Formats: sequence, structure tokens, C-alpha cells
Amino acid sequence: MRYDEMSREERKQELDALKKEYKRMQGMELNLDMSRGKPCQEQLDLSMGMMDVLSSTSDLTCEDGTDCRNYGQLTGIEEARELLGDMMENNPNDIIIYGNSSLNVMYDTVSRAYTHGIMGNTPWCKLDRVQFLCPVPGYDRHFAITEYFGIGMIPVPMTETGPDMDMVEKLVAEDESIKGIWCVPKYSNPGGISYSDETVRRFARLRPAAKDFRIFWDNAYGMHHLYDDRQDYLIEILAECKRAGNPDMVYKFASTSKITFPGSGIASLATSPNNMEDIRKQLKNQTIGHDKVNQLRHVRFFGNIHGMVEHMRKHADILRPKFEMVENTLDAELGDKGIGSWSKPLGGYFIGFESLPGCAREIVARCKKAGVKMTPAGATWPYGKDPMDTSIRIAPTFPALADLEAAAKLFCLCVKIVSLEKLQQEA
Amino acid sequence: MRYDEMSREERKQELDALKKEYKRMQGMELNLDMSRGKPCQEQLDLSMGMMDVLSSTSDLTCEDGTDCRNYGQLTGIEEARELLGDMMENNPNDIIIYGNSSLNVMYDTVSRAYTHGIMGNTPWCKLDRVQFLCPVPGYDRHFAITEYFGIGMIPVPMTETGPDMDMVEKLVAEDESIKGIWCVPKYSNPGGISYSDETVRRFARLRPAAKDFRIFWDNAYGMHHLYDDRQDYLIEILAECKRAGNPDMVYKFASTSKITFPGSGIASLATSPNNMEDIRKQLKNQTIGHDKVNQLRHVRFFGNIHGMVEHMRKHADILRPKFEMVENTLDAELGDKGIGSWSKPLGGYFIGFESLPGCAREIVARCKKAGVKMTPAGATWPYGKDPMDTSIRIAPTFPALADLEAAAKLFCLCVKIVSLEKLQQEA
Repeated sequence: MRYDEMSREERKQELDALKKEYKRMQGMELNLDMSRGKPCQEQLDLSMGMMDVLSSTSDLTCEDGTDCRNYGQLTGIEEARELLGDMMENNPNDIIIYGNSSLNVMYDTVSRAYTHGIMGNTPWCKLDRVQFLCPVPGYDRHFAITEYFGIGMIPVPMTETGPDMDMVEKLVAEDESIKGIWCVPKYSNPGGISYSDETVRRFARLRPAAKDFRIFWDNAYGMHHLYDDRQDYLIEILAECKRAGNPDMVYKFASTSKITFPGSGIASLATSPNNMEDIRKQLKNQTIGHDKVNQLRHVRFFGNIHGMVEHMRKHADILRPKFEMVENTLDAELGDKGIGSWSKPLGGYFIGFESLPGCAREIVARCKKAGVKMTPAGATWPYGKDPMDTSIRIAPTFPALADLEAAAKLFCLCVKIVSLEKLQQEA
Repeated sequence: MRYDEMSREERKQELDALKKEYKRMQGMELNLDMSRGKPCQEQLDLSMGMMDVLSSTSDLTCEDGTDCRNYGQLTGIEEARELLGDMMENNPNDIIIYGNSSLNVMYDTVSRAYTHGIMGNTPWCKLDRVQFLCPVPGYDRHFAITEYFGIGMIPVPMTETGPDMDMVEKLVAEDESIKGIWCVPKYSNPGGISYSDETVRRFARLRPAAKDFRIFWDNAYGMHHLYDDRQDYLIEILAECKRAGNPDMVYKFASTSKITFPGSGIASLATSPNNMEDIRKQLKNQTIGHDKVNQLRHVRFFGNIHGMVEHMRKHADILRPKFEMVENTLDAELGDKGIGSWSKPLGGYFIGFESLPGCAREIVARCKKAGVKMTPAGATWPYGKDPMDTSIRIAPTFPALADLEAAAKLFCLCVKIVSLEKLQQEA
């Protein structure tokens, strides 16, 4: 029964019962973390074979003769660009292999635009006003980068098919100070949706007022399907932009952080030859090259893209039950209450939850008091400020399945309590 | 006999003979590289054991319980900070472990000062004029960073004991636009000299006009002794600055690039708690953490600082004969000619050579035409412009010993020819 259809007295009774249950669960002294998109131990174990592929008797020479142990190869070894090219669906020549973190690559990309400008345009530090569009809810670490550089952030609502493209088209066409947009186009963070074909096509056809407008396309979960038979496909953005006559409009990011080891994977950027040349000019001053031994380790571990796909099926086998557990719990506990909605993504690392207005912060606080850590409410909005206070990111990957059940139940309990209290106040 | 004491005719005869010899050597079709400070294959082989220390059955957990395979530990794992603390002679708490490249850390340090300023001071991008002192000859990649950021570079002559400190003291005290100085304090690049105690003491007691003046102390060769019984010692700069009441004046850089594998080592920065806090504010936006598995690999490979020192003795055993070969060749071929001087460093990666004025560029060009690649003449000066055209950096580490003999002989031959031609012109 929907809570908003209950009588005041019915709600009171329900609330009393729930609070008793909450007390009981507090007594369990849970200590669980659903706050970050972290792989669990079983997932990390999947890549332990990577520790064996190179040994003291290995030849660490690339196919082109490069000794991976020595300096050189600014943009990465050929075989790594090939593997990540297959992963990103891009030409290996359009790819730079970086260090261990795509976040770092995104930061550096913003920083370079700030200090030196993009392809001959005025450095952003010399402009009075620079703004980014921020689809919301979105990824807190993206927003942290733009905030750090004093870049204004304009929220754009997410829909079932991606950002509100009417709004995106209008804003970028009108305002030259809008220099970028943060996108997680596949299994988005936190909603778990993938951009529709129409959305990608409209992205590629944007007519930005700013010549140095760039789409920051963080394809973090391109390989992260939960199901074999139901997968989202995304139109490849670089190719679509090229076809649309906008070849230079995208920086596309990816990494193996959630494929092998977070922090010990390899990150990459794909972009047009013009952007690539622009980046090279900077990169050669920043480093002599990234970790080629780790690039080689990845290549030899996977062999090829099929090896990586098979590897990702093992990740999916671990994660699928976790996602389904949380979704089933949400269905069972909240399905008929009318106090929230949530996504059922086919991949990625998150489930997006939308509470009744004004409840998210309180729900997360309540979870914490009973030992379940959630991403801070508001984190999915620029400056950590969710104006309606509705958006909660659920990260079900890290806890063990048994723990997750308790965590999901507690979460639902907190949603119910907070929503009921809200409804009582308003009644 | 000194060339400048020869008669015109004697010089002509000598030149004819040398040119014949040069032709002969051109016929050998050498293809040797003395241009960069690259370890040779035998040196890289010393660290192959590092590929075995972690295997699929290893426990990749730190002593504090951190799983190195997952996200976290922004400033590096404790045991790596301890090892590199011993290496850098700094408190592990004053150290951040970064990715694979100290050059990248230096770039990022300049970039952060440019975009956000140092400890609350005006960002350098908002200032009309920012300048660095550049001891010359110096390291081309340092100068490339400052040039890239449009930072003015003021050459300061190197002496036998370090930069001309009278000049350094005067300039930093007078000019608020001077924000930094590039230093390679031990076995300097390219001269191979180490700063004297007095020099370090005077550095620590600088009274810069700019509050955000920082010493960029690139201690790249702190461990790189060639001899057991003759080693340079350096006063530790952070401690000396602290004693002198200037605790925040230094950023100190190091890495294991030339200890394990260039490009696959770990880099670090040591600095005061105030600077550290300043850096953390930025770093947390740039990355979730660096490659902890590689940090752990290094720690387990070396065990402790003594293990690293023993490892460096093996490097020295490979490099010592190369340095001595080049120095002996220079002595034998040029010792009595009065056409150049060179350093005999006790460590590091380079021998600095000073030719007669106006000869360096031509010497390097001649070497190239006979198949020996040297660092471009002028590279050791800001903007690649050596006003006297005298400075040549010899990098003897990479070629095999037998090849090095030919390369050193050819180099001497080219010095002689170019110097004789110069003397003939001037006569």
C-alpha cells in the first residue's frame, strides 16, 4: 500500500514498527560500505594471474623492438594501443595510453585547457567565465575537478535516454563561456542508463558557440555488462562526430581500473588527430612516458579483446547477484509504497535511487547511524548540493553478498522511516 | 702539445691527418647513442627479479591492512614512504609517493602553482611576470617545463661547488617575480658536481622577496655513486631549511627510474607539512591514488634501504668502467691540447664537457655525421641557447663498453677537428 494513501494513524503504527526494527538492526552493529564504486575482493582475485604473466625470465620487448623497461614511447606501446583501441572501439592511432588513472587524465585535460587553451584558443585561465554542463545526477569526482578550477557548473537533467538534449543544444549554441560537458554515456554514474542513439547523434551534431567546446566522454563502464543476453550498445562518439563534421569535439576516456586493479590499471584517451597533436605538445613536457611494463603486463594477460570480454563475464558473474539482490530487496520492500524510484541497470557500478523530495540526506544519515555507509547525499550534484534532496547513489559492488542483503534491507528501512516522517509532517 | 701553441702549418698537418682518420671512422658506420641518460640493458637486467616478487599467490596486503589492488592511499603506502624516506633522507610522513615519473611530479608542481598558487599566494597565471633561476649548464627537461608555462628563465653559472650563490642570493632577494630555481644538487646534470655544504647552507638561508619562492630540488642521483670509497655527501635540504627557519622553501623530488626501470619505477616528493597540505588539496581532485601494486613490488624487491644500496653497487659496477673509459679517452686524446675541459664525477649519469667557445654545436654535428648521437649542443641552456656555444653533455651509460670506446674516440676526434678549424680561422 502506498504510504501517501495511508491514514495518519496507519502511518504512525507503521512508523512505530519500523523504528523498532531499526533499533534491532542497530544492535547488529553492521559495518558496511555502499559508498564508492569499488570492486570487491573476489573481483580483484580474478586478475591475480596478471602477477604471473611477466617473470624474471620474460622478454619485455614489444613487437616493434622497444624495451619496455627503458624510457620512451610517449603515447604508449603499440600492442596496448591496439588492445585498448578494441576496448574503446577506436583506431589505435587515435589513442594515448596514460598511467594508472583516467581521472588523472581528465584532470590533466582540464588543466591543460586552463593553462594553455585548446588548439590555439585562449587559455581558460585568461577568460572571465568558463562553464561546464553537468548532467545530474552525475559523478562527484567530475564535478570536483571543474569546481577546483573555478569552472561554473550548470546542471542539466538526466532522462531515460541521457541528458536533456534540448537544453544541451540550446545552452552550448547560445553561450560561448560553455566549454565542456561531463558525460558517462554507458551505464551512467549513478543512474546506470546508457545514452540512446538519438542522444549520441545529437551530441555529435552540437553547434557550440565556443570553438574550444569539448565533450568529456568518460566511458568508464564500456565493458561492464551484467548480462550476456541484454547489453546496452552505444554509438561510437568519435566516429559519429567525424561523420557529423565535428571531428575535434570529443575527448574520450577509459581505463582498466575496474577490469584489472583500481590504481594499477592503465588509462587511455581517444581523440582526433588535431587534438592528439595538441596534447602531444604538452605531454612531452610532462613526462618521458608512462609505465610500459604495466602496459605489456595487461596485453599479455588478456591476449586480445576476446580475452578481456571473457574476463568481464567473470566480473559480471560476481556482480550480477549483488545488483539483483539490491533490486529485489528494493522491489519487495518499497515496490508498492510510492516513496522512491530506482534504476535497474544492465551494467556499470551503481543503482540510482530517487527518494521523495527532501529525504535523501536524512536517509543517508540514518543508514550511517546503523553502520551502513552510503555516498553522501548531494554528491551526485555540483557543489554537493542537490536542490530537491532526492538523489542517492547505491554502490552494491564492494560488500559481500550476505552483507549486502542486510545493507539493502537497512537502506529500505531508512527510506521508509524518513519518508513516513516526511509525510506525517506534511499531512 | 697545445693546439694554440702550434704553428699554422703544424695545425694544418694535424688537421689533414685527423680528417683522414674521421673518414676512416665514418666508414665504420657506427650507430651509437650518447644523447640521453638511459640505463643500458645490463642495468635493466639487474631489476628483473622485481618481476618475480609478486605472484598470483602473493598477499598484496600492506602492513596496515590496505589491499594494494584496490582504490585508496592517496599519498602512497606506508612501507613505500618508509623505503623512499630512507632513500631521500626524509621523514616518511613528509613524503608523497606518486606514479612512474618524477618529471611528471615536477611538471604538476609547476602547473599547480600556475593554476592555483602556492599556499594561498596568487596563482602564477594571474601574474604578469614569473621567473625561474636556471643554473647552467642544466637539465633540458627542467627548462622545457618552465618554457612551456611561459616562465622567464635567468641563467646562473654553475661553479665547482654549485650555482653561483652570490648571484642567487642577490636575485631572489631583489626580485619578487623570481619564484623558483631548478637544482640537481648531487652528481648534477650535466656537470656531475655535487653542491658543497656551504652552497646548501646558503640555499637554506635564502631570503626571497617572493613568499611563494620555492627551490625545486631534483635529487635524481642521490643513490648513484660510482665508487664505494669516494662518494659525495649532501646536507639534507629539508632539514637544513627547517633549521634555518625556512621550512616551506623546498620541493624535493626523487624516483627509482634509474634504480629499477625507467618508466616503471616510483616517484616521490618530500616537502614540509604546510606544502604537503597544500598539495593534498589538489591531489585529491587529480587522482584516487597512484599504483600501489608497483609500490609494494618495489618494497618487497629491496626489503629495505640496505637492499637498495647493494643494488646500486651493481649499477655502479656496470657504469664505472664506462665513465672511466670515456674519461681516460678524453685524458689521452685531449689532455694536452688545451681545447676543452671535462668533469670527472663520482656518480650520476653524465660527464660535462666544455669546448672552446663557438665549437660545441659543430662538434655534435660532426659526431652525428659519423654515427654518434650526442645531446644537442645548447640543450643544457634555457631555450636551447648556449651563448658561448661551449657546453656538451656526454651520456656514457647506454652504449655497450666496446661501442663506447669507439664513440669516445670519435668524439675526441671531432673536438680536435672543430677546434683546429676554429683556431685556424682565428689565427
